[in-house]
Amino acid sequence: MAKNFTSREKDYSQWYNELVVKADLADHSAVRGCMVIKPYGYASWEKMQAQLDKMFKETGHQNAYFPLFVPKSLFEAEEKNAEGFAKECAVVTHYRLKTDPENPAKLIVDPNAKLEEELIVRPTSEAIIWNTYKGWIQSYRDLPILVNQWANVVRWEMRTRLFLRTAEFLWQEGHTAHATKTEAIEETEKMLDVYAEFAETYMAMPVLKGIKTASERFAGADETYCIEALMQDGKALQAGTSHFLGQNFAKAFDVKYATKEGKQEHVWATSWGVSTRLMGGLIMTHSDDDGLVLPPNLAPIQVAIVPIYKGEEQLAQISEQVAVIKTELEAKGISVKYDDRDTHKPGFKFAEYEFKGVPVRLAIGPRDMENGTIEVARRDTKEKEILQQQDIAGKIEHLLENIQNNLFQKAIDFREDLTNKADNWEEFKNLIENKTGFVEAHWDGTAETEEKIKQETKATIRCIPLNNKLEEGKCVYSGNPSTQRVVFAKSY
Amino acid sequence: MAKNFTSREKDYSQWYNELVVKADLADHSAVRGCMVIKPYGYASWEKMQAQLDKMFKETGHQNAYFPLFVPKSLFEAEEKNAEGFAKECAVVTHYRLKTDPENPAKLIVDPNAKLEEELIVRPTSEAIIWNTYKGWIQSYRDLPILVNQWANVVRWEMRTRLFLRTAEFLWQEGHTAHATKTEAIEETEKMLDVYAEFAETYMAMPVLKGIKTASERFAGADETYCIEALMQDGKALQAGTSHFLGQNFAKAFDVKYATKEGKQEHVWATSWGVSTRLMGGLIMTHSDDDGLVLPPNLAPIQVAIVPIYKGEEQLAQISEQVAVIKTELEAKGISVKYDDRDTHKPGFKFAEYEFKGVPVRLAIGPRDMENGTIEVARRDTKEKEILQQQDIAGKIEHLLENIQNNLFQKAIDFREDLTNKADNWEEFKNLIENKTGFVEAHWDGTAETEEKIKQETKATIRCIPLNNKLEEGKCVYSGNPSTQRVVFAKSY
Repeated sequence: MAKNFTSREKDYSQWYNELVVKADLADHSAVRGCMVIKPYGYASWEKMQAQLDKMFKETGHQNAYFPLFVPKSLFEAEEKNAEGFAKECAVVTHYRLKTDPENPAKLIVDPNAKLEEELIVRPTSEAIIWNTYKGWIQSYRDLPILVNQWANVVRWEMRTRLFLRTAEFLWQEGHTAHATKTEAIEETEKMLDVYAEFAETYMAMPVLKGIKTASERFAGADETYCIEALMQDGKALQAGTSHFLGQNFAKAFDVKYATKEGKQEHVWATSWGVSTRLMGGLIMTHSDDDGLVLPPNLAPIQVAIVPIYKGEEQLAQISEQVAVIKTELEAKGISVKYDDRDTHKPGFKFAEYEFKGVPVRLAIGPRDMENGTIEVARRDTKEKEILQQQDIAGKIEHLLENIQNNLFQKAIDFREDLTNKADNWEEFKNLIENKTGFVEAHWDGTAETEEKIKQETKATIRCIPLNNKLEEGKCVYSGNPSTQRVVFAKSY
Repeated sequence: MAKNFTSREKDYSQWYNELVVKADLADHSAVRGCMVIKPYGYASWEKMQAQLDKMFKETGHQNAYFPLFVPKSLFEAEEKNAEGFAKECAVVTHYRLKTDPENPAKLIVDPNAKLEEELIVRPTSEAIIWNTYKGWIQSYRDLPILVNQWANVVRWEMRTRLFLRTAEFLWQEGHTAHATKTEAIEETEKMLDVYAEFAETYMAMPVLKGIKTASERFAGADETYCIEALMQDGKALQAGTSHFLGQNFAKAFDVKYATKEGKQEHVWATSWGVSTRLMGGLIMTHSDDDGLVLPPNLAPIQVAIVPIYKGEEQLAQISEQVAVIKTELEAKGISVKYDDRDTHKPGFKFAEYEFKGVPVRLAIGPRDMENGTIEVARRDTKEKEILQQQDIAGKIEHLLENIQNNLFQKAIDFREDLTNKADNWEEFKNLIENKTGFVEAHWDGTAETEEKIKQETKATIRCIPLNNKLEEGKCVYSGNPSTQRVVFAKSY
């Protein structure tokens, strides 16, 4: 499997592209910028979805579904939001095809089937949802509305990469409505915490929680909170965002509620989302030059078992023993694949599971049958050991936890190593260009300085960390006074 | 709740439309023909999805995801399929909006951002998927491919109705590839069985399994299998279809595999789908003039508990007791809502849960607290009884099973009553027009007769039942000889 596989050092970007395709996670499609998510990749996304969905429901949210299309007149109602997305909108203009009169085997767009009003394929759903909420909200009794949607969205990106940036992607978007500003801000922060907990506990991907600067804010938000992760090439990945939308959409769509006292007030809003982009973060955080490394909590197959045998009789004996082990593992909720294909040799199978990042691979042969042993290989450290079969399920369960923790700790150590302070412009440029990673530096708070730093170094402010330490300092670029360090990095 | 609610007898169609909206299942949106699925309706759809997904996986299928868009040149590759869907396609022609030079607050489609090739919003995914499978299949070792996709699709329908026929709907579409014709037909039939089992066991909706006539076949299929249910107005609802696609798509997209003997052969295909239309079937099969009736297996809330109290102290006592009961119920996997809202009276809550079809409603007041009793009301028969609280969870569990079975039996009895034989044209017309329901009649097997019967009575052949009894007879319309009865009905 790992033949002709580019190493990270040689070309990190190429490494990633090859990995996604060769590990059967996703592939390019016939549609520009759109991906096919293959069964193995989708199985991991399903595990993410299931866990996130559980966490959303535990925090009081319900799912619903809103239309794929947004009429242009609704789309443009919230001006900043419309302006932010206008340049990347797929637009439906017609609703029928007809046979090409010049070539009966071909179809053409029927010019008589032009829509009176164009429909935008949703790049995000604030407009269509707030237009709907108008009908749902009359009084304080109707609030809060805590709704989430699992959906596909389309943003016409010019430079696309599998999972990280695609024209169509899958995501969830929460859209909530509240009576007060305080409550809406609490919701925004609560969902950021949910994202951070998910990223760290399930993806084993450490994240910084923070607030975006005004220029990096979601179009239409008053404040954008984010989680930022650090990839192995030292670039940051924005992994999730949670927006406090103020009353912007309530005003654009005239959504008011009657307070207990009978006054009419505009409603307060939040929205928050994570997408299949998380798959990109998952892949890049842990994988190595031998292929994919998946944390056990999100691996479609947690344990692969390979029999080593000669002849059908031996296979039958081994299979009988494996059936017992498999049942014990599954009783502990561990997903197991027993690979008894006779079309491939054990060595091929070992390489395949290694490349596909299966956390634990077991092998059992005739000698193991005699000795009551089994070979246990872990993907993260590539260590192998021979264990007694007795209580093997308990041992594997423990090992999977161990791998999950090890991957997280490794990622934390990596991030720590690549998080540095810069106190002047030379240090800043040197760190960004040579060491890469997160650079903590003072900034004067102006969009102008932010823009100049971006132009000169390609680094952007990833976030102003939550609960940031206040300290006197001088902006690394302008020398103007500053009260706190912010986090810079190059990013995806 | 049931005020201003039209009865079935008065106007069945109006009854359905009002029910869907007033029971908070779905609503119309700002986009022509597209619906908003509200949280209560979506929660039931989620239960359907979860069960179907489990059944698909148990039969060896994996999920994947393919692009929303289909380039026109791929769309038209399988001619019959293209012809069948061309008239209802939403077409994306542009990928950018820009500010209207004549009105800076408005956006217009940017004429400079016209796509070279138009993109069709998928009405079904055979084209994009078979174009992808071409890259996945080289040898018999790559077969079978057993893939399912949960997705949204768009068919530009002129007359839409919530859930039953909408321009955008949610569905699953299975797409499988096989080495042999026999295996593909087995798959087609297996998935029809899965649908039928789901409909009867979970939806409590009896279905006929059968095959469509050539004129009712899916565009691009060699054979279409279907499940057909009967609604309370005597009209049939096609609830799911499973298609044997032959080698049509393999030929259109040139998908071949090398056999064990090294020969190149075209691959055999199936596709099968059910959609949010099932929600329409679920609603119409069981509901009555007092609102929704949901089978316990798919009800978002299976048990609602309403406290009857005066003052906070009494409420606190009741709540303490309810907490115990709720825990016991939940331990049995029963979904419970305790409604202690102080903004609404018990009578209002009773009416709300009745209208929303919650299978069991419990009420507990001060006298119950004294006597250790609880009031149990079932939605299907509207019976109420006072039960001892002892082992209440066991009693409720039993009651829910009882309700599920009762609804199914009731629907079977209804269908039996409305399934009749017609042996001549007068009988046929009389049954279709006055009695409605399924009419079993001989048909001469020609598309011409089928079409004439449709024109004269609006009845279509719903299916030729699987394992149909063979019997000599004469076509009710033409008098020509026939070997079996087929099932006619008016339909949705």
